[in-house]
Amino acid sequence: MLERIKIVLIGTSHPGNIGAAARAMKTMGLSRLVLVAPRCEGITPESVSRASGADDILDTTPTLETLEAAVADCHWVVGASARSRHLPWPLCSPRQLADRLPGEMQAGTDSVALVFGREDSGLSNEELQRCHSHVHIPTSETYSSLNLAAAVQVLAYECRQAWLSTQQPASDRHPAPFGVEWDNPLAGHDDTERFFTHLERTLIDIGFHDPRNPRQLMARLRRLFLRSRPDAMEINILRGILGRVDRLARRSEATATGDSSRRHC
Amino acid sequence: MLERIKIVLIGTSHPGNIGAAARAMKTMGLSRLVLVAPRCEGITPESVSRASGADDILDTTPTLETLEAAVADCHWVVGASARSRHLPWPLCSPRQLADRLPGEMQAGTDSVALVFGREDSGLSNEELQRCHSHVHIPTSETYSSLNLAAAVQVLAYECRQAWLSTQQPASDRHPAPFGVEWDNPLAGHDDTERFFTHLERTLIDIGFHDPRNPRQLMARLRRLFLRSRPDAMEINILRGILGRVDRLARRSEATATGDSSRRHC
Repeated sequence: MLERIKIVLIGTSHPGNIGAAARAMKTMGLSRLVLVAPRCEGITPESVSRASGADDILDTTPTLETLEAAVADCHWVVGASARSRHLPWPLCSPRQLADRLPGEMQAGTDSVALVFGREDSGLSNEELQRCHSHVHIPTSETYSSLNLAAAVQVLAYECRQAWLSTQQPASDRHPAPFGVEWDNPLAGHDDTERFFTHLERTLIDIGFHDPRNPRQLMARLRRLFLRSRPDAMEINILRGILGRVDRLARRSEATATGDSSRRHC
Repeated sequence: MLERIKIVLIGTSHPGNIGAAARAMKTMGLSRLVLVAPRCEGITPESVSRASGADDILDTTPTLETLEAAVADCHWVVGASARSRHLPWPLCSPRQLADRLPGEMQAGTDSVALVFGREDSGLSNEELQRCHSHVHIPTSETYSSLNLAAAVQVLAYECRQAWLSTQQPASDRHPAPFGVEWDNPLAGHDDTERFFTHLERTLIDIGFHDPRNPRQLMARLRRLFLRSRPDAMEINILRGILGRVDRLARRSEATATGDSSRRHC
């Protein structure tokens, strides 16, 4: 899917932006860049420097004279538009673009083009009217000066999100509890309950908890620990700590008994 | 909401990236930028040039020495992480971050920090372990070289998406972090860090933790407690327990000293 997405830059003024756009594309797995009538030399050493390893994209980037030529093999052409236009045109957000992308890809065998305009003035009305849809990246009302490569980055990111969603087997749509593969299995119910039993006994032994006046202490501690879904090693660590405290408590008690027996002597 | 999101850049090498990050932020309505120990001059004329009109953000950007100082007023700290780590940590995608953001904002009155590491090496393990969550921007498997400002752009874009969603009528669809109205405010960063400091000292005092051979003990305990997002009362309870254990440890030590003095008698 991603190899059928074409990024078209029209009338770009700064060679650095071309390189930065290539870099933005490559991080998201896009590879097809087309320049239309750049208002600069096109690809320069500055472009290569800003591409930062994505210059393989620049090597295969054609420079064409017209938007028409750039999108000739595309069945869905979407123009990035900053301004609201005189004549309303179908408009989507980047997220809506991503939602539609897989379906659009299935609907045609050609490519999809995302078209970006000039750094200072965007796309002309005529260019926008060559597009099936417009996409508007929502920006601050008081400052909408999105850098060209940054705009490419946002849409390329949404394209990759769309592609990732098609790659997920249905079973993977239920992520692991912590969003990442964990290093230890979650603690079993029994182990967790044994920990709570141990915790309560220790808290009584050290005089922190009075079962005759429990307030909500154990409930609060249960809630705290259960919320974090402890893994097996974490439960082992916690029980290790309790074991150490138990020893201290016993030693302290033995001393107290010793003291009192001495008192009685 | 957006004014309570803080972008923290650690160890940045290129002044231009700082300016480009400010520009990326401002387009999405973010305004709070903090530099931590930059590995360059910090804000230079190149930064201002790349900020392209977002230099009001640079004017109010403090440069601090530690991550600790930068996130002291934050109740949710999320570190951008490119690599999978030795010790898995709760991880979310930028989209999941956006989904959680409004609820997190309701749950605490402090700020939320999005922390970005060095251009070449990202965040250190120690820095990542100060974070409640990590966020990973999915990139191409063969080329993951996301420019720093581009990474800021993607997350800032998702933050704005999250904010826009709260501006829509049915804004009740953003659950609080625990899916229910909570009885206590979430613990502040300082209180939580003081708890970890106390915990470590106590574990050393009772002989459970040897800082010369730390293994991953404190990292594992940080991960466990940060995952549960402790509330203020829970932190109080935990510190109460530690205080009680401290007293036992002191008594035990005094006894040991007393014992030995008796032995010497």
